[in-house]
Amino acid sequence: MAGNRARIAVDAMGGDYAPIEIIKGAIRASKELDVDILLVGNRQQIQASFQDSSKFSNIEIVDADEIIAMHEGINELRRKPKASINVAMDLVKKNRADAVISAGHSGAAMGAATLKLGRLKGIDRPAIGAVFPTLIANKSVIVLDVGANVDCRPKYLEQFALMGTIYSKYVMGINTPKVGLLNIGEESSKGNDLALATHKLLENNETIPFIGNAEGRDILSGKFDVIVCDGFVGNVLLKFAEAVGDVVLQIMHEELPQGWRGLLGTFILKSNLKKLKQRIDHAEHGGGLLLGVAGICIISHGSSRAPSIFNAIRLAKEAIDHKVLEQINSYGDKLIPESPN
Amino acid sequence: MAGNRARIAVDAMGGDYAPIEIIKGAIRASKELDVDILLVGNRQQIQASFQDSSKFSNIEIVDADEIIAMHEGINELRRKPKASINVAMDLVKKNRADAVISAGHSGAAMGAATLKLGRLKGIDRPAIGAVFPTLIANKSVIVLDVGANVDCRPKYLEQFALMGTIYSKYVMGINTPKVGLLNIGEESSKGNDLALATHKLLENNETIPFIGNAEGRDILSGKFDVIVCDGFVGNVLLKFAEAVGDVVLQIMHEELPQGWRGLLGTFILKSNLKKLKQRIDHAEHGGGLLLGVAGICIISHGSSRAPSIFNAIRLAKEAIDHKVLEQINSYGDKLIPESPN
Repeated sequence: MAGNRARIAVDAMGGDYAPIEIIKGAIRASKELDVDILLVGNRQQIQASFQDSSKFSNIEIVDADEIIAMHEGINELRRKPKASINVAMDLVKKNRADAVISAGHSGAAMGAATLKLGRLKGIDRPAIGAVFPTLIANKSVIVLDVGANVDCRPKYLEQFALMGTIYSKYVMGINTPKVGLLNIGEESSKGNDLALATHKLLENNETIPFIGNAEGRDILSGKFDVIVCDGFVGNVLLKFAEAVGDVVLQIMHEELPQGWRGLLGTFILKSNLKKLKQRIDHAEHGGGLLLGVAGICIISHGSSRAPSIFNAIRLAKEAIDHKVLEQINSYGDKLIPESPN
Repeated sequence: MAGNRARIAVDAMGGDYAPIEIIKGAIRASKELDVDILLVGNRQQIQASFQDSSKFSNIEIVDADEIIAMHEGINELRRKPKASINVAMDLVKKNRADAVISAGHSGAAMGAATLKLGRLKGIDRPAIGAVFPTLIANKSVIVLDVGANVDCRPKYLEQFALMGTIYSKYVMGINTPKVGLLNIGEESSKGNDLALATHKLLENNETIPFIGNAEGRDILSGKFDVIVCDGFVGNVLLKFAEAVGDVVLQIMHEELPQGWRGLLGTFILKSNLKKLKQRIDHAEHGGGLLLGVAGICIISHGSSRAPSIFNAIRLAKEAIDHKVLEQINSYGDKLIPESPN
């Protein structure tokens, strides 16, 4: 393996289509991206999943003979030190890898990351950031948290806003990201208790380029680069948005005209529907980034297939290349005194 | 005016396009639906907005010379007894009307409804229900609350579930509505503090046909007839969903092929895009129904034009015809002892 390349540990056993789809995605990444891959899991199963017998110089298998199943609690993390997600996190802890990707039990991935890697300075609660497309071509918005913290305090949201700002600035290249607080109205007087208190914190934090409340309709508008919310609202939104793409395509199919006009229209539009799906389908983005732990960790969908895993590896590489962790850490001192709650 | 027809008070002064679009919608309803309309507002402005001078036997103007502007607080309700929304509510209170429709200040409409009409038996907090389309043609789901209560206690959500059940049963004709709790996972162990406590209440309430948690992806799936959530999450979702229709159409337009193939495809699909928009656009449903106050009250969008107002009047008529209030009231006794929180 090369010296300075991003080294990415992939939980080969996690996800509905593990290990075969996970491995396919990893192989593609090993060919197309400048990365070293550590496939973590049962060696025999992994080797059986390689469709050709050729060797890949930048893929290595790391043994892990246990798994944490989707129905199991995160207490299993302690009972199964050799679970693939634990072994993958250990690789980051021991500085053998820079990032972990898992499409397995997301609670277990978050738990393992927090327990093994610890949190960055100034961060009480790591958050999962999800990238949504916007109306403006090639412009995305990062929404966080989308599921790590279902009950939040105002200072957690302030920390999410800082992490989102750093991500937007250093990974997405937005010089002064427009940061919004998800809320039910534009006015600062609007919102639930959490939003009202968070609004004040954000207004007074000079490190965060806060521009005000973002309503539901603003998420996809492109008016914001970063939107913060608690993990309950964010998770509901994310899953709703993911489903919308399929719903729209199905309704469109149903509403298309019958007969030859319909066939013609469908034929002409077929390739474009695919492009459309790519823009509205969140899965294309590879997964959520767990921000706030001392290591890059991508939480992919349980339903991830090879393309999602490939995209997740690319996302991890971008986060590594742009030194997201170091940036968050360097701002940690500024956070703490400004969080009275 | 006829004796047994639904009598609907329309706040002619509320909304971005008031009074002209409000009045157009009301005139259409007066022609196409079996209703009597009471147009509430400034008589001169209303009369000037009638495009022809013909008389409508089932439209009456009721004077109200003040308005509550969008930027004003709801304290203005008490300072302006002659505000159109107050006068409209008074008509219901005095049994001169069965329902109120307003596209004006939604907080003022809710406040006036609660203050003037009072709450139904067993209901602590009225909720706004919004009807979403689903993947299944002609099947809708009612989501509540979508904005009346941003901080909720578990028993409020239990009350929303009961009101949604009654609405689904009597207005939408679903014999045993499938009721869900909006949450971040299917398991009863998932959720924030509010969802966890509400899950227990719903499980133990025999009047509510609760079938479990609904995730974000389930909202449009057609698996549920009623979904309950707090008004913060519901409002964010509603506004997100409303925007999605426009976003999809715009992306589709951008992604359509250039040149003659694109023109042909666009031409063929044009009428179908309109049908598609109707299915995904919430505005087509006319607005949200404020459930739990002792009167039918429809909160329409500020941006409502004539078709939305027409749909809102139809929605009000359905609620009146199906005696939604009487049904909720008759279940009130069953609610109170089952709400320990």
